[in-house]
Amino acid sequence: MLHLLLIQCPDERGLVYKVTGVLYGLGLNIVRNSEFVERDDHVFFMRTEFECAEAVVPAALLPELHAALPPSATISLGNLHRPKEVVLLVTKEHHCLSELLVRHAFGELNATIRAVISNHEVLRELTEKFNIPFHYLPHAGRSREAHEAEVLALLASYQPELVVLAKYMRILSPEFVAPYANRLINIHHSFLPAFVGASPYAQAYARGVKIIGATAHFVNEQLDQGPIIAQSVIPIDHTQSAHEMAQAGRDVEKIVLARALKLVLDEQVFVHRNKTIIFD
Amino acid sequence: MLHLLLIQCPDERGLVYKVTGVLYGLGLNIVRNSEFVERDDHVFFMRTEFECAEAVVPAALLPELHAALPPSATISLGNLHRPKEVVLLVTKEHHCLSELLVRHAFGELNATIRAVISNHEVLRELTEKFNIPFHYLPHAGRSREAHEAEVLALLASYQPELVVLAKYMRILSPEFVAPYANRLINIHHSFLPAFVGASPYAQAYARGVKIIGATAHFVNEQLDQGPIIAQSVIPIDHTQSAHEMAQAGRDVEKIVLARALKLVLDEQVFVHRNKTIIFD
Amino acid sequence: MLHLLLIQCPDERGLVYKVTGVLYGLGLNIVRNSEFVERDDHVFFMRTEFECAEAVVPAALLPELHAALPPSATISLGNLHRPKEVVLLVTKEHHCLSELLVRHAFGELNATIRAVISNHEVLRELTEKFNIPFHYLPHAGRSREAHEAEVLALLASYQPELVVLAKYMRILSPEFVAPYANRLINIHHSFLPAFVGASPYAQAYARGVKIIGATAHFVNEQLDQGPIIAQSVIPIDHTQSAHEMAQAGRDVEKIVLARALKLVLDEQVFVHRNKTIIFD
Amino acid sequence: MLHLLLIQCPDERGLVYKVTGVLYGLGLNIVRNSEFVERDDHVFFMRTEFECAEAVVPAALLPELHAALPPSATISLGNLHRPKEVVLLVTKEHHCLSELLVRHAFGELNATIRAVISNHEVLRELTEKFNIPFHYLPHAGRSREAHEAEVLALLASYQPELVVLAKYMRILSPEFVAPYANRLINIHHSFLPAFVGASPYAQAYARGVKIIGATAHFVNEQLDQGPIIAQSVIPIDHTQSAHEMAQAGRDVEKIVLARALKLVLDEQVFVHRNKTIIFD
Repeated sequence: MLHLLLIQCPDERGLVYKVTGVLYGLGLNIVRNSEFVERDDHVFFMRTEFECAEAVVPAALLPELHAALPPSATISLGNLHRPKEVVLLVTKEHHCLSELLVRHAFGELNATIRAVISNHEVLRELTEKFNIPFHYLPHAGRSREAHEAEVLALLASYQPELVVLAKYMRILSPEFVAPYANRLINIHHSFLPAFVGASPYAQAYARGVKIIGATAHFVNEQLDQGPIIAQSVIPIDHTQSAHEMAQAGRDVEKIVLARALKLVLDEQVFVHRNKTIIFD
Repeated sequence: MLHLLLIQCPDERGLVYKVTGVLYGLGLNIVRNSEFVERDDHVFFMRTEFECAEAVVPAALLPELHAALPPSATISLGNLHRPKEVVLLVTKEHHCLSELLVRHAFGELNATIRAVISNHEVLRELTEKFNIPFHYLPHAGRSREAHEAEVLALLASYQPELVVLAKYMRILSPEFVAPYANRLINIHHSFLPAFVGASPYAQAYARGVKIIGATAHFVNEQLDQGPIIAQSVIPIDHTQSAHEMAQAGRDVEKIVLARALKLVLDEQVFVHRNKTIIFD
Repeated sequence: MLHLLLIQCPDERGLVYKVTGVLYGLGLNIVRNSEFVERDDHVFFMRTEFECAEAVVPAALLPELHAALPPSATISLGNLHRPKEVVLLVTKEHHCLSELLVRHAFGELNATIRAVISNHEVLRELTEKFNIPFHYLPHAGRSREAHEAEVLALLASYQPELVVLAKYMRILSPEFVAPYANRLINIHHSFLPAFVGASPYAQAYARGVKIIGATAHFVNEQLDQGPIIAQSVIPIDHTQSAHEMAQAGRDVEKIVLARALKLVLDEQVFVHRNKTIIFD
Repeated sequence: MLHLLLIQCPDERGLVYKVTGVLYGLGLNIVRNSEFVERDDHVFFMRTEFECAEAVVPAALLPELHAALPPSATISLGNLHRPKEVVLLVTKEHHCLSELLVRHAFGELNATIRAVISNHEVLRELTEKFNIPFHYLPHAGRSREAHEAEVLALLASYQPELVVLAKYMRILSPEFVAPYANRLINIHHSFLPAFVGASPYAQAYARGVKIIGATAHFVNEQLDQGPIIAQSVIPIDHTQSAHEMAQAGRDVEKIVLARALKLVLDEQVFVHRNKTIIFD
């Protein structure tokens, strides 16, 4: 049985020795181990996959680790076998949603998609093909606050571990974002920080760039400013209109989002300040 | 003998027919032909390589083309065999300069590097290894205006067709730039428009991006806003410091600059408003 | 109304002039024009998109073009608005099939998928979600000849303009391939010509390469030897097993196949000997 | 003072704990640590950068590590501050040589280039610009054995730690290669294993591929079959001749070779059977 240990704490000498000592003492076999020391703030990050003969890790593990590590250490045990509960928010574009629905249907996401929520009806048919509940919460005629409250209430009923904005074209308030800190993933259709905000392909066309891209990131209180998880790009040229750039960009967007989601589902992503540390 | 015809004019029906008709009538053989219609402003661009049995193109060519095309057409004849005269401006970093000096030394640039001008002495030794005149024009103790006037005067003495800022770390005034419109190429050490301005690698590190890049562009009156000629990127990760990103980025910068310069030397680049049309 | 003209003929002076002259004389407006001369065999290729006020192109167009061009010229008129009829062959892997079904469902393929044929039942459910007929033609217990004859007969009943092998894991005989020359597209899960044949990811793992890829190509009589339409790659490293490489490779495969199919559907691909000329 | 510890041994439980325990016990601070377990053969690899207050590591370090690890363990201590001694072999093409000479001249290679050996005189001038001894050992009129013996004797006089074939266009015999096992780096001008052997660009042109590349690898007894260190690629299209592909490919070759050499100089590369494990 494969287990996961995630540690974040102030850096000091001997941390790897102490952690591996606790595991060794309990007879747990390390399968994969990654460490990183962030040098600006002297923070130590460690991600360890270990095997345990029994299904349950020894009760002594967490107390022994806490005894060995600095008092402010964050230590968590994960289970790579348990799919995480996810809710998707979408608007009208189908490409990211279909990418995730298909992967989910074939067991390629270590996740259970509990529901899809949208401010439009467009993607109901696609979603229901895959037997996932689709909720239509229109924003028309509602204040932003009222609409967000509705979405939050519906989300809360699912208690998702992760929320994915799979081309959800509404700007979210800090109040919406706060309860889902580091659990809310967005795909932005540009190579951030180029072209923040609306209509990045129109901006890219206007600027005459030769490469466009996409960015998957955690959402924080500032639009398009959260920690970046994954990015990718493709070359373009002067013959492409903004519309054609958007078409070409969609292939990048959906693959980047799927890749970022996989990293998060497999707990390979730490967040420190406004950056990610990714153990892949 | 290979010649080059470049045309830019308002779009209208039959332009390709009319141009190729003039060439056919004069017995000139088209070797390579590219056209593009910019749809926002309805501008027609054409680049034609043609062969001519004699070393000189027929005297009738330009008058016949002017007669066939709209009155506002810009028509120019180029000679792909004649190297262009180029002057390089540099500061302290060697990688772009060495890239161009080596290519020049081995006849790979369709250009003659007439001189290297710098506000530091650091790159004199490298430049003189390749038998290129090196001029040291320090900016210390001079006003920006005075220093720019000195550089402009020295440049003028060479009458370069192109000026390349091969990591010249001074911001240029609009007065400096004006006489070299569309003839002044800069390499910016980021994937523009991300990270305009100073210290793009420090900015990239602070933002936690997963990809960095470089942009070669014509310089216009606004810093980092001119028409983009070429861009390229490389992936990075959280383990790299801003310094290491800069190291990795240099390989991209020099290749992008060399590629952009080759496109311009081979007259494959048209500029329209703030964008390039590239026939490659 | 947008029309398409495709020409392939021995190269000679004045071809562009003659073709554009015929179009100009008939009052047809060229929207986009591309030419290429293959220099080994001196073959001229031209692809022209033109507008015509009437829905039907003038009856004089083809005769006038034939009169103007060498007798051996191949001239064809296409209609970019008419979706092509396509049949897909698959085995068990879903990623290429789902990519094409989703694009088809949202009108992004300029094609009508008439049917999916498979030697396994695995992908029936997915196919039928999208209301496309699924035919199960098992190969077990049949000779290769008998099975191919069955598939060919079923294919013939659909009279497809294109057949796509969307991860169809059977080697096809020359007899199967012959009637679909340049109309049968395969996705090979390697960067050809590296790793031809079976299990390319296992081969890539064994060889310790640092990059893997995928190749979409027309199928000819020799396995994996047909004209290449599109290729793409991703970096890998020593930590990835052959199985993980295959997972990562699937994202490349499906995007490359979709891109190649789009190029073929939009008639941007000429085939000459064993190579493609692509006007994109 | 930064030191380097490299370990390779049969995998068993507790190896990280034991190694870090020895370092911790001696008061040595781990700065960077990477481990990998090769699962086919159950081999453990570890690369550890550690700091030591004194310039010299404690005499007890190696004995204690040997006592803690399996008897067959390979343990080596490196010094990241000492430049390695390197000799380059070249033929006529300058791009890889100039890349390395320039980096060397500006202190960017953690190496001392002791000499350049060539079977042609072409690159003498370039080499001597950078004050590096150039030896011309012509192969004309000599048997392969005699020529190789001369080169080996000259190499031996320099006792290089690494030999780099920077476009040395001679096939080496197993006898030549044997004494430099895992210390002889070649740049092959294709994306191996595609286009092994001579004239890969001509092969790529003939096959009509859409991407070309370069491969830096250790040389073993079979041509182009040694462990791959780094690879990179660029897109090409039907308009490029084999000659133009070669031109475009050179930019990839030199950057890939420089990157591979840096990895080897920084001791980030382990070799196991025919593959590399790279800790970057």
